[in-house]
Amino acid sequence: MFEKIALIGIGLIGSSLARVIRREGLARHIAISTRRPETLKRAENLQLGDSYSTDARTAVRDADLIIVSVPVGASGTVAEEIAPALKKGAILTDVGSTKQSVVAQMSPFVPEGVHFIPGHPLAGTENSGPDAGFPDLFDNRWCIFTPLPDTDPLALEKLSTFWRRCGSNIDTMTPEHHDMTLAIVSHLPHIIAYNIVGTADDLANVTKSEVIKYSASGFRDFTRLAASDPTMWRDVCLHNKDAILEMLARFSEDLSSLQRAIRWGDGDKLFDLFTRTRAIRRSIIQAGQDIDVPDFGRQVVEHPEKK
Amino acid sequence: MFEKIALIGIGLIGSSLARVIRREGLARHIAISTRRPETLKRAENLQLGDSYSTDARTAVRDADLIIVSVPVGASGTVAEEIAPALKKGAILTDVGSTKQSVVAQMSPFVPEGVHFIPGHPLAGTENSGPDAGFPDLFDNRWCIFTPLPDTDPLALEKLSTFWRRCGSNIDTMTPEHHDMTLAIVSHLPHIIAYNIVGTADDLANVTKSEVIKYSASGFRDFTRLAASDPTMWRDVCLHNKDAILEMLARFSEDLSSLQRAIRWGDGDKLFDLFTRTRAIRRSIIQAGQDIDVPDFGRQVVEHPEKK
Repeated sequence: MFEKIALIGIGLIGSSLARVIRREGLARHIAISTRRPETLKRAENLQLGDSYSTDARTAVRDADLIIVSVPVGASGTVAEEIAPALKKGAILTDVGSTKQSVVAQMSPFVPEGVHFIPGHPLAGTENSGPDAGFPDLFDNRWCIFTPLPDTDPLALEKLSTFWRRCGSNIDTMTPEHHDMTLAIVSHLPHIIAYNIVGTADDLANVTKSEVIKYSASGFRDFTRLAASDPTMWRDVCLHNKDAILEMLARFSEDLSSLQRAIRWGDGDKLFDLFTRTRAIRRSIIQAGQDIDVPDFGRQVVEHPEKK
Repeated sequence: MFEKIALIGIGLIGSSLARVIRREGLARHIAISTRRPETLKRAENLQLGDSYSTDARTAVRDADLIIVSVPVGASGTVAEEIAPALKKGAILTDVGSTKQSVVAQMSPFVPEGVHFIPGHPLAGTENSGPDAGFPDLFDNRWCIFTPLPDTDPLALEKLSTFWRRCGSNIDTMTPEHHDMTLAIVSHLPHIIAYNIVGTADDLANVTKSEVIKYSASGFRDFTRLAASDPTMWRDVCLHNKDAILEMLARFSEDLSSLQRAIRWGDGDKLFDLFTRTRAIRRSIIQAGQDIDVPDFGRQVVEHPEKK
């Protein structure tokens, strides 16, 4: 599909891309660049690409598609670094979890004739680094583009085809709407998970070993999100601040109201909320966005009839 | 092990008990009682027991072991109802998620010569009702007893053996410590999950269909806990109020501090918290309390090398 694809950053997303590009034959040449020599060496040992460089500018030379997969706070620096070497007609995209900030950071450096199309594949696990990637990561997951007013429709179509061949479904929206949507479906859940795990870690009257020992009664579900890459999530918090603060305010307001219902013994109010949220779970399963087995399928469910 | 076991309540826990008691041959006779005739009928159709009655007093007559598996708010009513029919020497236990309240509700009704041992198997899924149960539910899960000062050690040992044969590991602690520990490992996570799902449900600028569509980016993890039985969780909130309010206060305090770090762009503070929480996840996996595969094993991880 492309002569040369340059992957800047080779963590979970970058290395998954390398693997699926190779498997699907989407490029003749995969150039890999990352700042840290140890990570680059690891990518080379895993044979993820065809050429390797700690210098992003070297990697992007002659590339038809450049995919920047770095923590969003580094987007501007990367754009500035690679700009002089970008080929005319090349497509430049990213995978960052916040879009207004990435557009603001990268746009000023994009040369005339290069198609910059901000993107965000909604895919990931709690693991990170080149070893964590796998080629099925994007299977049936959404990839959201936030095209700019002057985005070339042909370039957008070509990039969409690329992501579809990686397994994704495509959506487009404005950067603003993306950031607001992701703040509720992704950023707030991660921040809340980090927070509750931190609260549990700080207790004195219940020991840490007890928290761990009895975690299967609910707590462990939060620890997965709270094990996500700290650098990535620090940057998300710093670069989608407004939308996140808005969602945090709503969450806290709702929590105060719930807390008041608990304090005053308002059972009806609790029952109403707990019933309403159950319906959302059903919708998510119906939409094929989670599996329909108890406990995420963590345990084997065997009915006596089947024994 | 027992001549007759009476199960009062035949939801997820009660019906799982019925199945494992049958499978392991732990009783000659299983008597099942539940208030709602439809639920009782369903239990009968599933052939979960040997006798069925909507009258709990009938079910417990001559029983050597009585297990009350009802929402904690109903414990006192059930105790009052069955008390006159309890056999001398019988063991009476429960499975409630809060222990101080259950002890306070049930103790006054327990006749002389009946061994009341409050218990709580830390097991469950987001599903409820007699169809949701399965005999492996208690496998390798903790069952916590909160014995009273006058609990007979022999009765406690017999009940422990019973739960071990159901698959559980046994722990004992005071009701107070149980309620504080469960408030952090189970009650707070459920309440936070209910709250965040409620917050998402109320948004106007992001549609409900978008929340569902993009839920795999984090949100869906919370919807599982938020799909738990509303009656059970209403009662937990009302009957472990003090410990829950204490944990909510700590959580909110921590969240305010985190929110401030986001507002003021304190990246170091965010990075520190996000790194610390990652270690907890590793401890939980090392302790065998969660599986060591990304995304709870929801997706198949295939490395290209294995293809």
